[in-house]
Amino acid sequence: MNKPLILVINDDGITAPGIGHLVSVMKELGDVIVVAPNRPQSGMGHAITVGDTLRLKETHIYDGVKAYECSGTPADCVKMARHYVLKDQRQPDVVVSGINHGSNTSISVLYSGTMSAAIEAAIEGTPSIGFSLCDYGGDADFSHALDYVKKITQQVLKKGMPKGVALNVNIPPKRNEPLKGIRVCRQANAKWVEEFDERRDPNGRKYFWMTGNFVNFDKGEDNDEWAIANNYISVVPCQFDLTAHSTIPLLNEDWDILS
Amino acid sequence: MNKPLILVINDDGITAPGIGHLVSVMKELGDVIVVAPNRPQSGMGHAITVGDTLRLKETHIYDGVKAYECSGTPADCVKMARHYVLKDQRQPDVVVSGINHGSNTSISVLYSGTMSAAIEAAIEGTPSIGFSLCDYGGDADFSHALDYVKKITQQVLKKGMPKGVALNVNIPPKRNEPLKGIRVCRQANAKWVEEFDERRDPNGRKYFWMTGNFVNFDKGEDNDEWAIANNYISVVPCQFDLTAHSTIPLLNEDWDILS
Repeated sequence: MNKPLILVINDDGITAPGIGHLVSVMKELGDVIVVAPNRPQSGMGHAITVGDTLRLKETHIYDGVKAYECSGTPADCVKMARHYVLKDQRQPDVVVSGINHGSNTSISVLYSGTMSAAIEAAIEGTPSIGFSLCDYGGDADFSHALDYVKKITQQVLKKGMPKGVALNVNIPPKRNEPLKGIRVCRQANAKWVEEFDERRDPNGRKYFWMTGNFVNFDKGEDNDEWAIANNYISVVPCQFDLTAHSTIPLLNEDWDILS
Repeated sequence: MNKPLILVINDDGITAPGIGHLVSVMKELGDVIVVAPNRPQSGMGHAITVGDTLRLKETHIYDGVKAYECSGTPADCVKMARHYVLKDQRQPDVVVSGINHGSNTSISVLYSGTMSAAIEAAIEGTPSIGFSLCDYGGDADFSHALDYVKKITQQVLKKGMPKGVALNVNIPPKRNEPLKGIRVCRQANAKWVEEFDERRDPNGRKYFWMTGNFVNFDKGEDNDEWAIANNYISVVPCQFDLTAHSTIPLLNEDWDILS
């Protein structure tokens, strides 16, 4: 029987420690191919390269693994993997993205390049998982996460995924107590409240750094923020149909300008 | 009674004809403020500027309208408008984005900077609308669209919007017959199949242009692709909760690695 083919992507760039860990775990599960950005692409959301060119270069950064660095966004990487690198070839059995350096819980899923790669794979009909470690530190400890990353990927390979669904997996930072396990969650109702740190450049012109505070409005115990705060790994199934279906009958009833 | 305050944004850049038309229409409805990118930002999805600086500059491009050009993405523009330009001031009654030069129907909503601005406004709790004209031509005719843009915005100002919902409005290109009216739709099941046009630069190194074909799998008559093909304006209510709620019980039942 063929080993599964696993496509690995991230948004922190192909040299980030997180993708190195992910490649190591995936090598235990199947044949691995990497197509990842050649530089950090955090916060790129579902951006794609329109009106500009793309570069793709083979690299030998990971032993025994075919790997390419791409000048584009995480979503571009999925498209190039699918429609150029693997064109007319066997397609991946699963696409894994990450392990992101930092949380992608709740509203951050929208801004996340890690999750846009996973969602792009779901659009292509491939089961996919975005993994994020809720620790932004440059020296973040991934050791407690790796067994779970393996288990979750094995589960997806074994059970498949409903069509059009990508998993958003967040892993608590390493704490003094061991992880409590895995919970399926919904996206928490939370958001960022931005602040703009105004400065002057050496020419006296204004510029800004965007900073902000994360505000959680969600009192539930079935959401990803609750899971992380309580030392569980959160698994949120995500879809790319943005239609607010329940709103359609409301508008049809309420609006007086419809045909 | 105060006139409504209307924030205008786009992704084609502050000098694009489409935003010019939108500003003109909105001036008939209320007080207008513009915060828009200083250059084209098509395909930026829900990208935000992380790890880099932002610039914001007042400009007098639109008569009698306070306007700012921003170096960031469409989502950045909403954040800067809300948390810097209008900090501690009256907030907009509606946010309108566009008019985009080109379609944002079906899956394109994910890649669209126009819609990311509208969705960012919905996250802030403000009713919002992204307008797109399904005509990529540089000399596209917006004339048939403007009355409808006005009517739809008036309707939202009058009726409000359910919390967390942004409208994705697409307008057919100017055809020989008049528009048939407005339909509330769901996002069509369709996607792009990419191709990569491989070329060599003057130094002999490979580069690529991403091109592709749009493939519509959807046979329904209640989706945005059908509406545009049949000369109706499509209105898709969009949400930013990506949770595939119906999948949660399936995973809870099916997976054997949960806590």
